[in-house]
Amino acid sequence: MTERPVGRDSSAFLANVRAERVKRVAALAGRSARSRAGLFLVEGPQGVREAVRFASSRVRDLYITPDAAARYRSIVTSAEEAGVYVHFGSDEVLAAMSGDAQGVLAVVSTEGVSLDSALAGAPRLVAVLADVRDPGNAGTVIRAADAAGADCVVLAGESVDLTNPKVVRSTAGSLFHLPVVRGGTLAEVVSSVGAAGLTVLATDGTGDVELNPADPACGALLAEPTAWVFGNEAHGLSPEEAALADHTVRIPIHGAAESLNLATAAAVCLYASAWAQR
Amino acid sequence: MTERPVGRDSSAFLANVRAERVKRVAALAGRSARSRAGLFLVEGPQGVREAVRFASSRVRDLYITPDAAARYRSIVTSAEEAGVYVHFGSDEVLAAMSGDAQGVLAVVSTEGVSLDSALAGAPRLVAVLADVRDPGNAGTVIRAADAAGADCVVLAGESVDLTNPKVVRSTAGSLFHLPVVRGGTLAEVVSSVGAAGLTVLATDGTGDVELNPADPACGALLAEPTAWVFGNEAHGLSPEEAALADHTVRIPIHGAAESLNLATAAAVCLYASAWAQR
Repeated sequence: MTERPVGRDSSAFLANVRAERVKRVAALAGRSARSRAGLFLVEGPQGVREAVRFASSRVRDLYITPDAAARYRSIVTSAEEAGVYVHFGSDEVLAAMSGDAQGVLAVVSTEGVSLDSALAGAPRLVAVLADVRDPGNAGTVIRAADAAGADCVVLAGESVDLTNPKVVRSTAGSLFHLPVVRGGTLAEVVSSVGAAGLTVLATDGTGDVELNPADPACGALLAEPTAWVFGNEAHGLSPEEAALADHTVRIPIHGAAESLNLATAAAVCLYASAWAQR
Repeated sequence: MTERPVGRDSSAFLANVRAERVKRVAALAGRSARSRAGLFLVEGPQGVREAVRFASSRVRDLYITPDAAARYRSIVTSAEEAGVYVHFGSDEVLAAMSGDAQGVLAVVSTEGVSLDSALAGAPRLVAVLADVRDPGNAGTVIRAADAAGADCVVLAGESVDLTNPKVVRSTAGSLFHLPVVRGGTLAEVVSSVGAAGLTVLATDGTGDVELNPADPACGALLAEPTAWVFGNEAHGLSPEEAALADHTVRIPIHGAAESLNLATAAAVCLYASAWAQR
């Protein structure tokens, strides 16, 4: 038996693009509305499927067109089984709610876990983003951290709002697979991950250690429980920020590139750790 | 002595946003205009600097505001030393030419090298993009291939136009660091790289070989001269495309992610090769 919220008419097909509900959902594209409501948008079948599978208790409402419901039948079934409130609406209503819904979106609570609880279970691999501003980069790092088997991702300092729709989309559902938490300043986060027994490695173009999982010394370092710190996409880590880490690590650049893009650098580091740790 | 094209007035400060020249440059945002003119745009200081340093013979014109010229003095000096025609223009003129110029842009010839000549010098590491459509992904793979020391990048099949401004920007100058060539169909490109002595590895979520540079068998495979084939960002490689490769390789997914984003997957593969080969 699935339990449905009372006092709402689940049978009403949403067809009025000017309805108050449509405006309220569409407004979640803006940070201040998200912050006020404690809610954010998950757009498109992949993100919605993963939100329903991994975080159904946080999904407040699911909106879907009849076409999308036919195409992604398992999303509707899983949502109904989990007691998520599923609303059917017209193509126009979904489009008015979000330009990127592809016929299905979810409104999800921003409630999450604290940094302390995310670090409670003897983590072995953590990614820390310091002042990362680009939503696509942040989301892609969260996806790579998930793939590499990281225990959590921490956004420190002035990093982008992790409920930004572009962040959510770029994670391709990974936002619901592992704890992704907002920490305080980078110094505070480094202190917390250090207290959790993690060696802190900061990526830096002039780092002391060259990243090479095949090298015995580097491999031994990578095999330790590790928190990787990745800096801002444009200017990296400041010397003061890099100095917070136990070691600074440089990714070898064999060609004429100045550096790697942030998300590709993070993926290379996190997989180097995964190979050394497993 | 630098040689200047004759018949053009290098001293004229460009201030008319409606000038024919401004329209001609701005039109290069469109593929058909680029194709007709055999020219494309490089926007912003990093890309322009690398074009001047690594491919000055292909730079037809460089446009810069007085402010940008003061800030990026070395770009102007290098361009003048290389005989590149430098035009000064107002902020408004540069903005009318491109929304992403940050005060400096170059018009560059699309002429490049052929696949055969790119493969002539006993290459050890090549990246092949098969039907990659997203400009940011394609550009980021080119940048990662450069960083990992690849000998060239080949765009096969229906891949994005490599002179697309978003591709150019995402390469962060790497477009000028190594040959980036358009091949024919994936089958033709695989045949060419095979004839050049490269083992062809295709990334595939269900690949036969698990990517792990620390594993002796995988490490031995990676140590061979290799052409990596990366498929479309949405649907990967078809079974027919994957079957063209000597081996299919899967990146281990330790968390709940379905896959990695294309550019991060490519970076992980290319660096795994670099570690095994060097």
